[in-house]
Amino acid sequence: MITPAQIEAAAQRVDAYIRVTPYIELEPRAFGSPAALSLKLEMTQHTGSFKPRGAFNRILSAAVPEAGVIAASGGNHGAAVAYAARTLGYMAEIFVPEPTPDFKVDRLRRYGARVVLTGANYAEAFAASQERAQETGALDVHAYDQVEVLAGQGTLGRELERQLGALDTVLVAVGGGGLIGGVAAWFAGRVRVIGVEPDRCPTLYAAREAGEPVDVDVSGIAADSLGARRIGNLAFLIAQSYVESVVLVTDEEIRSAQRNLWDRLRILAEPGGATALAGLLSGKYQAKPGERVGVIVCGANTDPARFG
Amino acid sequence: MITPAQIEAAAQRVDAYIRVTPYIELEPRAFGSPAALSLKLEMTQHTGSFKPRGAFNRILSAAVPEAGVIAASGGNHGAAVAYAARTLGYMAEIFVPEPTPDFKVDRLRRYGARVVLTGANYAEAFAASQERAQETGALDVHAYDQVEVLAGQGTLGRELERQLGALDTVLVAVGGGGLIGGVAAWFAGRVRVIGVEPDRCPTLYAAREAGEPVDVDVSGIAADSLGARRIGNLAFLIAQSYVESVVLVTDEEIRSAQRNLWDRLRILAEPGGATALAGLLSGKYQAKPGERVGVIVCGANTDPARFG
Repeated sequence: MITPAQIEAAAQRVDAYIRVTPYIELEPRAFGSPAALSLKLEMTQHTGSFKPRGAFNRILSAAVPEAGVIAASGGNHGAAVAYAARTLGYMAEIFVPEPTPDFKVDRLRRYGARVVLTGANYAEAFAASQERAQETGALDVHAYDQVEVLAGQGTLGRELERQLGALDTVLVAVGGGGLIGGVAAWFAGRVRVIGVEPDRCPTLYAAREAGEPVDVDVSGIAADSLGARRIGNLAFLIAQSYVESVVLVTDEEIRSAQRNLWDRLRILAEPGGATALAGLLSGKYQAKPGERVGVIVCGANTDPARFG
Repeated sequence: MITPAQIEAAAQRVDAYIRVTPYIELEPRAFGSPAALSLKLEMTQHTGSFKPRGAFNRILSAAVPEAGVIAASGGNHGAAVAYAARTLGYMAEIFVPEPTPDFKVDRLRRYGARVVLTGANYAEAFAASQERAQETGALDVHAYDQVEVLAGQGTLGRELERQLGALDTVLVAVGGGGLIGGVAAWFAGRVRVIGVEPDRCPTLYAAREAGEPVDVDVSGIAADSLGARRIGNLAFLIAQSYVESVVLVTDEEIRSAQRNLWDRLRILAEPGGATALAGLLSGKYQAKPGERVGVIVCGANTDPARFG
């Protein structure tokens, strides 16, 4: 389990490197919801997602060897680890599966990482990174299933509470569970935490049905950021205590939330970044009149030109 | 002249209708600047620009006749007037020149306005709207050269000060001068206000050179939002007292600021919305180390798909 004290310590550790991201308190009946809605604009974080919170905390918690740090991810986690390593003056090796698109590889390289293209899928790239870490002694930074990573992501919950005070409910998108695990650990039952998952990447939903983490098939428009095969063990344990429920949304509902964010607020989120809001706008999570609901817009690593 | 008391009154008047928009305090050396930079994310305002502040204040200050309100603008001002009128339950007629693209006309109609396509350019559409106002008695809402409009835009300066305290400098993009007039009137010399203009729409720059408002040729990528032919008389007077200097930026510098906002912050601004930042990033305004600079990102009415 992760304690609020660990998250408090993480916040002190990462403070100099992480942006305090803005929030916006919306007007009554915004999006037609009866709730008192606030959005946390975490897509303005460095590298365009919440991921640097965990990456910095993991790296700053360790004695980093000369081989630097290592991670497997062609997406937001890889970018965050590369960014954090460069900021702190360490080498980074990022393992990505061979089908990773060029623009993602280029992005990792722009952050100064050595990129290793290997394996047909994420699992193979991850296995290769673990092997490489054994050889070099590099510090591995997991995408979600490490205490320091979860504690780092939890700083987002802490920041939200400092900005918005006593919320009733927080909606969080779920992939591998790093963010919801950290946020739920921070609130520890004081605030209702609701997970929102694409129905085509239902890691936490499936784990709760099964009573333990299980593999799921992943596909759909949010798979590039939320498409973990299985919820992390740590996040699952935290969620069993502190996540009240998990709702599933369709790709169409995610797309509609993205569209609403742009039309009403000129906020451009990636599908995974709009997923938490989709939980509310779809009615899958039914907020009560006046309920103070915080919604985390957790990433915007999308190509604006491909938005329409 | 507009007084801070008029702006304070405007703020009370529009309070229920206007979003308090977020700000973000950037890390040291953000964008390579030695300044302590903060961005005001006013593009998250209703209709995607600051314009509803002035529109609501103008309409709420008047006894609106049965004919409703009238304005000339195919752009942000027209959308704001249409939105404000619908919100307050009044009819709106918006006059736009015949060459106005369909998507802008559609947007005005979605806000419930009656759209009148007339004239070859803005001046002709404006003249027709004035004639129509004479006939119907509708309340005209000018895009920038009315006391109530300027006082409404000034609420952005007030809000910025409440959020960020004692800034040294505020950078504001200039078109017809409504925003900079209102903001400069609010600060009234207590904060250095710098105007930033596209070199292809230099209304305030040219007026200061000439000692009075003069017509300029307008073109370039920001012309759709900043392309007034001439600075407003009220804004010019205020600027003579309270705007320290005006810097000109190129289309390339505006484009680069837009690109930086997206790459570093996942903020998508229209060219006019990125113009104030371009003043800083281009070095045309040279901030001192530690200078507390606020930059207003004033609009995002752009098509994401056309961003690249």
